[in-house]
Amino acid sequence: MPSTQTSTAAKKTALFDDDKEGQIYRTAAQMIHERGFAATSMNQIAEALEMTKPGLYYYVKGKKELLFKITSYAMDRLDEAVVEPAARIQDAEARLRSIVHGHARLLMSHVTALGILIDEVEALAPADKKVIVARKRNYLDLVRRTIDEVQSTYSGRKLDSTVAAFSLLGMVMWLSRWFRPEGKLDAATVADDITEIALRALLRGDAAPTVPPVPFPVPAT
Amino acid sequence: MPSTQTSTAAKKTALFDDDKEGQIYRTAAQMIHERGFAATSMNQIAEALEMTKPGLYYYVKGKKELLFKITSYAMDRLDEAVVEPAARIQDAEARLRSIVHGHARLLMSHVTALGILIDEVEALAPADKKVIVARKRNYLDLVRRTIDEVQSTYSGRKLDSTVAAFSLLGMVMWLSRWFRPEGKLDAATVADDITEIALRALLRGDAAPTVPPVPFPVPAT
Repeated sequence: MPSTQTSTAAKKTALFDDDKEGQIYRTAAQMIHERGFAATSMNQIAEALEMTKPGLYYYVKGKKELLFKITSYAMDRLDEAVVEPAARIQDAEARLRSIVHGHARLLMSHVTALGILIDEVEALAPADKKVIVARKRNYLDLVRRTIDEVQSTYSGRKLDSTVAAFSLLGMVMWLSRWFRPEGKLDAATVADDITEIALRALLRGDAAPTVPPVPFPVPAT
Repeated sequence: MPSTQTSTAAKKTALFDDDKEGQIYRTAAQMIHERGFAATSMNQIAEALEMTKPGLYYYVKGKKELLFKITSYAMDRLDEAVVEPAARIQDAEARLRSIVHGHARLLMSHVTALGILIDEVEALAPADKKVIVARKRNYLDLVRRTIDEVQSTYSGRKLDSTVAAFSLLGMVMWLSRWFRPEGKLDAATVADDITEIALRALLRGDAAPTVPPVPFPVPAT
């Protein structure tokens, strides 16, 4: 059942990076990202994990369930590191800053494939797809509401909050495609710059923000 | 030979939407996007196009060459609609506006799969990959240089131009994933809003721009 699955996963999140399930999800995510979902077999995943096929099937019933678990795992991390802390922030501008900064840090601290696969809903079983789409919608709505609130305090031309929300999310999600932890740019500076870009874009010209560092709830690797 | 291939493709661009090659590229791009590169066979592509397999091989020698041709086709459109017009603009702010607006309009006027596949360089043959990576780098450098120029005119904290360039490109490229031509939002308004977000983000607070419509060199469908 999707809801049980989700809450179990949420409870386990803190341990995942070290336990077998987390390892399965991260390895499988990387393989599916590189080869495509259709071209990756359970056999190949088991082999890469140095597990037997029955050993792998002990954790997941099949490839579609695996994709659902990977995506749920990524969404759990997002809820924990971004959505829940943001929901506790009253001030809309501070909330938007926290969302952009937290999401950027999360993406840069984890296997990039997780960030990319969150977008692979088409291969999911219909009931699972519904669950993931609803969770993504929930996040999009938070961003959209926050942008509306931020814009409500100023007069002048308002941006469409759907366009603005997808633009900010696109900017952040794109990190999975270009940021390399071993590269020249350091994750903290990148997160600060992206947050500044997002906030400048959303605030009126006469109130251009300087962005203070935001506490980041997930430890960076 | 890659360079011949590119210039031939560039000459043909205007006709592609109506001729067989354009049709092959757009159909194949859509299929590869939906199923993944490894899981899409030349047989299936030929079938979807109602062609014989030898008929398809008359146009492309194999799947890797097809991916290269699709990507080159997408890059040709980008050069034509975005890079070349931008290169003729002296003023950095106007150039940045033209790049963001033109790229957004291009993505919204074409099959979304083309925009997404431009990022699939890993499956290319090594020599072809080099050509595409160099073309993408050329575009990135244009955006980066333009951002540096825009920022040179103001004092205060400057954004890292690599982070800023990828952020703006991510914002624009994300359109391929969420914008639906049949949806409520109209492409012209979306392009205006994205351009405003980008320009506000890059200009200092005391010079927040109002964004005038930008002439768009590629006819929207």
